[in-house]
Amino acid sequence: MPVRALSWERGALVVLDQRALPERRRLLRLRRVEDVAEAIRNMTVRGAPTIGVTAAYGMALAARQGGYTPARAARLLGATRPTAHDLFVGIERVRAAWARGDDPLEAADAYKDEVVAECRAIGEAGAGLFRRRPRVLTHCNAGALATVEWGTALAPLRKARDDGVRLFVWVDETRPLLQGSRLTAWELQEEGIDHAVISDNAAGHFLHRGEVDAVIVGADRIARNGDFANKIGTYEKAVLARENHVPFYVAAPWSTFDWAARTGAAIPVEERGADEVVQWGDRRTAPRSSPVRNPAFDVTPARYVTAFVTPAGVVRPREVAALLRRRRTGAA
Amino acid sequence: MPVRALSWERGALVVLDQRALPERRRLLRLRRVEDVAEAIRNMTVRGAPTIGVTAAYGMALAARQGGYTPARAARLLGATRPTAHDLFVGIERVRAAWARGDDPLEAADAYKDEVVAECRAIGEAGAGLFRRRPRVLTHCNAGALATVEWGTALAPLRKARDDGVRLFVWVDETRPLLQGSRLTAWELQEEGIDHAVISDNAAGHFLHRGEVDAVIVGADRIARNGDFANKIGTYEKAVLARENHVPFYVAAPWSTFDWAARTGAAIPVEERGADEVVQWGDRRTAPRSSPVRNPAFDVTPARYVTAFVTPAGVVRPREVAALLRRRRTGAA
Repeated sequence: MPVRALSWERGALVVLDQRALPERRRLLRLRRVEDVAEAIRNMTVRGAPTIGVTAAYGMALAARQGGYTPARAARLLGATRPTAHDLFVGIERVRAAWARGDDPLEAADAYKDEVVAECRAIGEAGAGLFRRRPRVLTHCNAGALATVEWGTALAPLRKARDDGVRLFVWVDETRPLLQGSRLTAWELQEEGIDHAVISDNAAGHFLHRGEVDAVIVGADRIARNGDFANKIGTYEKAVLARENHVPFYVAAPWSTFDWAARTGAAIPVEERGADEVVQWGDRRTAPRSSPVRNPAFDVTPARYVTAFVTPAGVVRPREVAALLRRRRTGAA
Repeated sequence: MPVRALSWERGALVVLDQRALPERRRLLRLRRVEDVAEAIRNMTVRGAPTIGVTAAYGMALAARQGGYTPARAARLLGATRPTAHDLFVGIERVRAAWARGDDPLEAADAYKDEVVAECRAIGEAGAGLFRRRPRVLTHCNAGALATVEWGTALAPLRKARDDGVRLFVWVDETRPLLQGSRLTAWELQEEGIDHAVISDNAAGHFLHRGEVDAVIVGADRIARNGDFANKIGTYEKAVLARENHVPFYVAAPWSTFDWAARTGAAIPVEERGADEVVQWGDRRTAPRSSPVRNPAFDVTPARYVTAFVTPAGVVRPREVAALLRRRRTGAA
């Protein structure tokens, strides 16, 4: 069975609790939009496309449970995590269907199928990039867990592996929440892809020693000029890749591209609580009175991106605006 | 009372157990050279200059306890942590005194006093760099804990603060062992210097946003050409500082400069165990079968260093060889 982040089963959204991985595989059944909002906020589910699909089903649940207008349900879900553009795309898709009297659940299902199909297309578009560059670094989790199935950054790697490439993946642990060691390593392990977990600090070391052939990451939001937001630390890896003449790819479905954001300066960066950085179970890793800053994302300028891997193929940053314009005018 | 990493008290070396910080202040009394070797190996004490002084006292204990030749004690202590050049300087100083019949304890005391005096001199030499650049990023712990007193990277900051500069220190948590959040934040907290702990991934973000005026780190070994080894992740910060036009300083006492290493390629990089990266108390943060790579240090090329802060003043990388040559010929 392929890794799958969520499914709709008998009136409930069943999600894999990503906070319990890699030690436990715990499923949660969500029946109310409030529970869906909380699952997005507390990162039971995470990854921009999965967040968008989860929110789409949250809208469908709101329609079923009653007491919500489409606009009110959209506001509740839209307030959970401000950086991911997919969140608003997923919400809007179902809100519009609901408002015009269509079945919200059918709209959510259709949105999910579209996200999965786009990820499969990203895999097919990007697999060729790694045929001669099999030692690949990735940051955070842009795998099936983040996108329902396939992944964005991991989709081309899955496809390359299926094509017979002997991959080796360097997995940044991705502090503070360790999505790399907890989730990406888990996915690779499940599928038998060679990999090694490293501290984020070691990525530069291996890039500098020539042990990394390419870097690929996902994105939370991509501006019209190709600047993009992704998990904190992505900017560091992008700069280090360019410094070491290693190509840096960003894989994303259409919902991650935000026509309204002209540049990265328009993307809000969520700051999260101190405990994520300095609390480990019972243990405090810094003095209790030491302040903490915890931006969850950073914005990487387009000039560090070698190419975007999209469902329509591999495109250079300067081609993003034209591609989006064609899609908006229905030409693509 | 200033922060102090160790002291000699009534026939024993008393060390602050740095593994217990910041939650507990635990002192250990070491009476045998084997215990000293273990304390270095298991990182009860860490930081290159503190390791050197600890090993010097370890030699003095070996001379007192009997059963050791100077050479055998030196071999035992020299096998503990291969990257730090200071280790061998501290051992050799006492070995030579012992071999020629001088008091090993006096030699260890003299070595310690010299390290502390050099750190104070580093503070005086470097304080001026931060008068107009008060928002400073540091990585790992190059404070009093790492150098017995004062610190290397933190010495100029302590001195600048004493001179009335209102400092703000960005503290990289420094994975995998968190010497930044556990130790540097603790030292700054003890002395009332404003700071914030961040994940290593966030350093680039704040550099890119113009919120960091300067970076200063310590070193574990500096080659003749100015390449230097320091805690894993230092290379990343150096590249990011240059990319963002922020000066990058390296503070070190003489014992860290290694004339025998012509370039960074001659510096061995210690790889440590997987558990440091993926084990948190009882909790495993990656699948049990996922491989881990854990280099403890990286080597940063001299071209990323704005200047070295030494006991003799602030010097450019290209001046390092001449400075060392003058010291070797007794002219400095």
